[in-house]
Amino acid sequence: MKTIIVGGVAGGMSAATRLRRLDETADISVFERGHYVSFANCGLPYYVGGVISDRGDLLLQTPESLAARFRLDVRVDHEVTAIDRDAKTVTVRQTRSGAETTESYDRLILAAGALARTGITPAGLATRTLRTVDDVDHITALLAGVTGQASAVVIGAGFIGLEAVENLVHRGVHVTLVEFGSQVFGPFDAEMAAPIFDELLVHGVDVRLNTTVVASADGGVELSDGSVVPADLVIDSVGVLPDTSLAARAGITIGASGGIQVDGSQQTNDPSIYAVGDGVEKIDAIDGSGVLITMAGLANRHGRATADSIAGEPGEASPALGTAILGLFGLTAAMVGWSEKRILGQGRAHRVVHTHPASHATYYPGAEGMSMKLLIDPVTDAILGAQIVGGSGVDKRIDILATAMTGGLTASALTRLELAYAPQYSSAKDPINQLGYVAENLAAGTTRALQWHELAAARDAGAVLVDVRSAGEFAAGNIPGAINVPLDEIRERLPDLPDGPLIVHCQVGQRGHTAARILSQGGLDVRNLDGGYRTWTAGVT
Amino acid sequence: MKTIIVGGVAGGMSAATRLRRLDETADISVFERGHYVSFANCGLPYYVGGVISDRGDLLLQTPESLAARFRLDVRVDHEVTAIDRDAKTVTVRQTRSGAETTESYDRLILAAGALARTGITPAGLATRTLRTVDDVDHITALLAGVTGQASAVVIGAGFIGLEAVENLVHRGVHVTLVEFGSQVFGPFDAEMAAPIFDELLVHGVDVRLNTTVVASADGGVELSDGSVVPADLVIDSVGVLPDTSLAARAGITIGASGGIQVDGSQQTNDPSIYAVGDGVEKIDAIDGSGVLITMAGLANRHGRATADSIAGEPGEASPALGTAILGLFGLTAAMVGWSEKRILGQGRAHRVVHTHPASHATYYPGAEGMSMKLLIDPVTDAILGAQIVGGSGVDKRIDILATAMTGGLTASALTRLELAYAPQYSSAKDPINQLGYVAENLAAGTTRALQWHELAAARDAGAVLVDVRSAGEFAAGNIPGAINVPLDEIRERLPDLPDGPLIVHCQVGQRGHTAARILSQGGLDVRNLDGGYRTWTAGVT
Ligand SMILES: Cc1cc2nc3c(=O)[nH]c(=O)nc-3n(C[C@H](O)[C@H](O)[C@H](O)COP(=O)(O)OP(=O)(O)OC[C@H]3O[C@@H](n4cnc5c(N)ncnc54)[C@H](O)[C@@H]3O)c2cc1C
Ligand SMILES: Cc1cc2nc3c(=O)[nH]c(=O)nc-3n(C[C@H](O)[C@H](O)[C@H](O)COP(=O)(O)OP(=O)(O)OC[C@H]3O[C@@H](n4cnc5c(N)ncnc54)[C@H](O)[C@@H]3O)c2cc1C
Ligand SMILES: CC(C)(COP(=O)(O)OP(=O)(O)OC[C@H]1O[C@@H](n2cnc3c(N)ncnc32)[C@H](O)[C@@H]1OP(=O)(O)O)[C@@H](O)C(=O)NCCC(=O)NCCS
Ligand SMILES: CC(C)(COP(=O)(O)OP(=O)(O)OC[C@H]1O[C@@H](n2cnc3c(N)ncnc32)[C@H](O)[C@@H]1OP(=O)(O)O)[C@@H](O)C(=O)NCCC(=O)NCCS
Repeated sequence: MKTIIVGGVAGGMSAATRLRRLDETADISVFERGHYVSFANCGLPYYVGGVISDRGDLLLQTPESLAARFRLDVRVDHEVTAIDRDAKTVTVRQTRSGAETTESYDRLILAAGALARTGITPAGLATRTLRTVDDVDHITALLAGVTGQASAVVIGAGFIGLEAVENLVHRGVHVTLVEFGSQVFGPFDAEMAAPIFDELLVHGVDVRLNTTVVASADGGVELSDGSVVPADLVIDSVGVLPDTSLAARAGITIGASGGIQVDGSQQTNDPSIYAVGDGVEKIDAIDGSGVLITMAGLANRHGRATADSIAGEPGEASPALGTAILGLFGLTAAMVGWSEKRILGQGRAHRVVHTHPASHATYYPGAEGMSMKLLIDPVTDAILGAQIVGGSGVDKRIDILATAMTGGLTASALTRLELAYAPQYSSAKDPINQLGYVAENLAAGTTRALQWHELAAARDAGAVLVDVRSAGEFAAGNIPGAINVPLDEIRERLPDLPDGPLIVHCQVGQRGHTAARILSQGGLDVRNLDGGYRTWTAGVT
Repeated sequence: MKTIIVGGVAGGMSAATRLRRLDETADISVFERGHYVSFANCGLPYYVGGVISDRGDLLLQTPESLAARFRLDVRVDHEVTAIDRDAKTVTVRQTRSGAETTESYDRLILAAGALARTGITPAGLATRTLRTVDDVDHITALLAGVTGQASAVVIGAGFIGLEAVENLVHRGVHVTLVEFGSQVFGPFDAEMAAPIFDELLVHGVDVRLNTTVVASADGGVELSDGSVVPADLVIDSVGVLPDTSLAARAGITIGASGGIQVDGSQQTNDPSIYAVGDGVEKIDAIDGSGVLITMAGLANRHGRATADSIAGEPGEASPALGTAILGLFGLTAAMVGWSEKRILGQGRAHRVVHTHPASHATYYPGAEGMSMKLLIDPVTDAILGAQIVGGSGVDKRIDILATAMTGGLTASALTRLELAYAPQYSSAKDPINQLGYVAENLAAGTTRALQWHELAAARDAGAVLVDVRSAGEFAAGNIPGAINVPLDEIRERLPDLPDGPLIVHCQVGQRGHTAARILSQGGLDVRNLDGGYRTWTAGVT
């Protein structure tokens, strides 16, 4: 049986190696239009920054190593240009010579990945994407040729744009980050992205929100705000779209999301043709809809699953959560599932929890802070999504939440997780357990919460805001108009508090919770400002 | 309603604070026989080592702070000496004056913790435990008084013994570690404890296995092997037992494990009396039996749950996994669920997987190695337990596995976890996914494995051992008698291999898996040495 694979990196090569392990007799050819296979796409930005200094480290396998170990026929600089489904053949063009051949297949795997989204940056502007080994060769050569401090404009403040920014700064380049939207790191909700924005400023990045690049200008580019910023280099990282052209031309069904539609065995509407990776529509774990999630983990996993299907083993058909993580100047931002924006976009009911715990017990040196957001279905208590930003331990907590979601644990069940505790690693109640406690209190009605963006309206409607932090904390910065009643004095001062609705807040929400309990048992109508002063500050600024 | 709490640290104080939050009108008294409440037991060793330099950091709360915030009546230096269940009173003795009073209760919470196990070190030997603030005050004063390099003997190489060793070494003390058993870190299986043993040697610790202390000697102690080792200080950390004396005298039911028996609401056989923490028997998550697990996380969680029960909220009754973690000189060792020893002790069928992955993508600098062991029920594919030892990222992986176990995920389902990947944090297939792949291959019969301790018998029975690593790796160290056929040559050399049963191995098991696939499809009877050379070496030495 002969299998042809289009695309020789994450999804394609994972399918190839697994298929070989399952079937020594299979005839397996991999066509890759680029000059490299099995390269570390995800490492490319770090090579630009010099964090990965040896270019060879990016090339995890070569056609030769894959032939030796896996008896794969891997042909780089070979592009598949057409599929003849009736004849079960593909047309292959050698990109260097232009020579074309026809190759027959029994099974075809489409693993062509994604293409940079176009049409957002103006035509004619000399931009470069950051997607291939060629791209980083070009970028590093260009920067090496600049005398004095180089400058760059990065368009798009998503995952790859931000990784590009970090690495350019690390290399000493002056960076202007141009973002069309009103916040950096669009996958996050605005108040969670605030620390990322701050981190960019701390590292001297010139961040331009609500802005686009409109044209090239002398020595740089002109922005939509009329300014001209210097640019030896313009990196276009506004995002990617599934590369479905080959599939579409052959009549393979494309889903509403724009990705190739596959079943649980990665099979397309043509039973001889499978598809995997960034080009493919995933099934959303929250609502079962077709979505685009372009992640290496899924490409690798589904590549392997495709081989299993072809070898006759059962498919796995597991839905995707979209777990993702970004490192930026030592800050980590990670997410899983749906953001609040997306939930709102669907008009779906939800409950929100914000916390600001420490990575480990604060009595042990070196604890770092983080901000967490949990999104919950108020009816089922299911976890809909989470976002975490901060220092060490963010990656651990997002993975615990992703695992909890896969295991079907409710938000309240997070209280029951028995996580490893010694003071260097966690707290006796891990931040994940605490998220669960806060969620459980909301579910049980033990505390009522108010979100940062609801505060202004609640106060307009007559609610009084009580800041229960210490007098010192209050003096160092407060929400205008709040009255200060430190938590430890609240019982005595309860009789003096107004009768109407109260909103209490502290720094992060924890003392506010205790205050709310005291006051509500004292007969007052009270809500706790979720995430406290810190979330409010992040949200309003 | 009046609640009396016996013991004012993890379990007791967590119950007290939550009870106050739930009920402003409750009358809550906490009696603590020591001089401190709410202290960081888990931080004590690090104060000895000077890692935590401010003694005040150990004291998370004081009776005054707890009165101010939670209106708790906290009395230190007060020991509860008897319970009169009929009268619903306790006898309280002021430890300083000896004065006794009687206090009545509606609800009583026993949170007396554990006591050091006695009878193992010889009577009359001047040892000190490491359990209280007084202990560390004594230890640090004693060490401060030694001129020249101090020396210490630590008895017992469990969690607290090893933490004591690390901190004494960190302080410049010469340490002899005396362990009755044949390995350090008894909770681990022997081959997984090997890196811990090595790490102790690297740090100059004199480790004596299969040894006990028999008597004091001039300037030190005499060991069972006849030697005398120097000791300005002897720390006894052979373990703890539940402190059930008060409960037992009052006729409270003690479980077979030796801990107080409670139901899912932490209620004892007396409906007015609750118990929580180290003194209490836990329900094992694997088999539902009564077990002793003495961990701060459970004490905190069950303390809170006790308050919920008393306030009339539903109990939680969740079983315990025994997740635990140790830091030792930068090495991390963590576990969850059952060890292989324990499984064998129960005569239970099981499957084992060993892997040795990197903490993150190796193409990104700074990846650290770890060794993982997964224990699986071969019938249900349920995860029975796991052990991990290594550098960074160990804590994350054990927490993911603990969460997976709580969520009821099978070993094979670990392949489906969508964990956050960027190269600083993980690999496109996280080590947890890889554990799942290996487990799935065993479950499906795709590869057959052999454990390190089964190798000798298999070879005695005629199996031939084939080392599929490179010639260079083979030359650097190999299993005596193995023949070297590098993986990339195995297809050509297949005809030369003997017909009988083969065992293949590589460094960690991964290339062995591919080799086994090639050979078994070539018609040979082959098994892959699980965990490869590395696990075998750790096991046999
Ligand atoms: C800079 C960068 C950083 C990233 N960082 C992360 C990260 O940290 N974490 C993460 O999870 N993901 C990350 N990703 C995304 C991840 O790399 C992709 O999700 C993954 O590589 C998708 O796998 P794939 O097989 O679908 O596509 P690819 O790995 O992109 O492979 C597709 C290949 O197909 C080839 N091809 C296309 N059409 C044809 C044709 N007609 N004929 C022959 N060959 C063809 C292409 O040349 C390409 O090499 C990053 C991506 C980039 C570019
Ligand atoms: C050095 C050390 C390090 C540790 N490290 C970790 C770790 O890293 N991770 C982890 O999970 N766990 C760790 N533990 C274990 C953890 O501290 C315990 O599991 C937890 O404290 C148990 O809580 P508890 O409330 O049952 O008992 P404790 O917290 O021990 O409190 C019991 C209290 O009851 C008091 N008491 C007893 N009898 C009476 C009486 N009759 N009257 C009045 N008072 C009484 C005692 O004086 C004691 O203060 C460590 C323990 C120690 C000693
Ligand atoms: C590397 C690449 C070729 C895949 O190779 P692969 O051999 O299939 O995958 P891995 O190296 O992860 O090894 C996984 C295999 O080893 C096995 N394995 C891992 N550790 C093992 C161990 N200790 N013992 C036994 N088997 C083990 C797994 O079970 C799996 O085998 P299986 O699929 O037959 O179950 C492909 O992923 C690739 O090209 N990657 C680079 C591109 C990319 O992913 N880019 C995006 C991220 S930067
Ligand atoms: C500290 C101690 C007194 C417990 O105090 P506590 O107030 O009950 O517990 P925490 O400080 O963890 O706070 C948890 C509470 O804050 C709430 N909370 C946490 N973060 C919050 C946030 N951002 N917003 C709102 N509420 C929050 C939780 O829901 C929980 O309240 P609940 O129990 O009513 O649900 C007790 O654990 C103790 O004495 N510890 C020291 C001893 C010890 O544990 N030793 C062993 C480990 S070293």
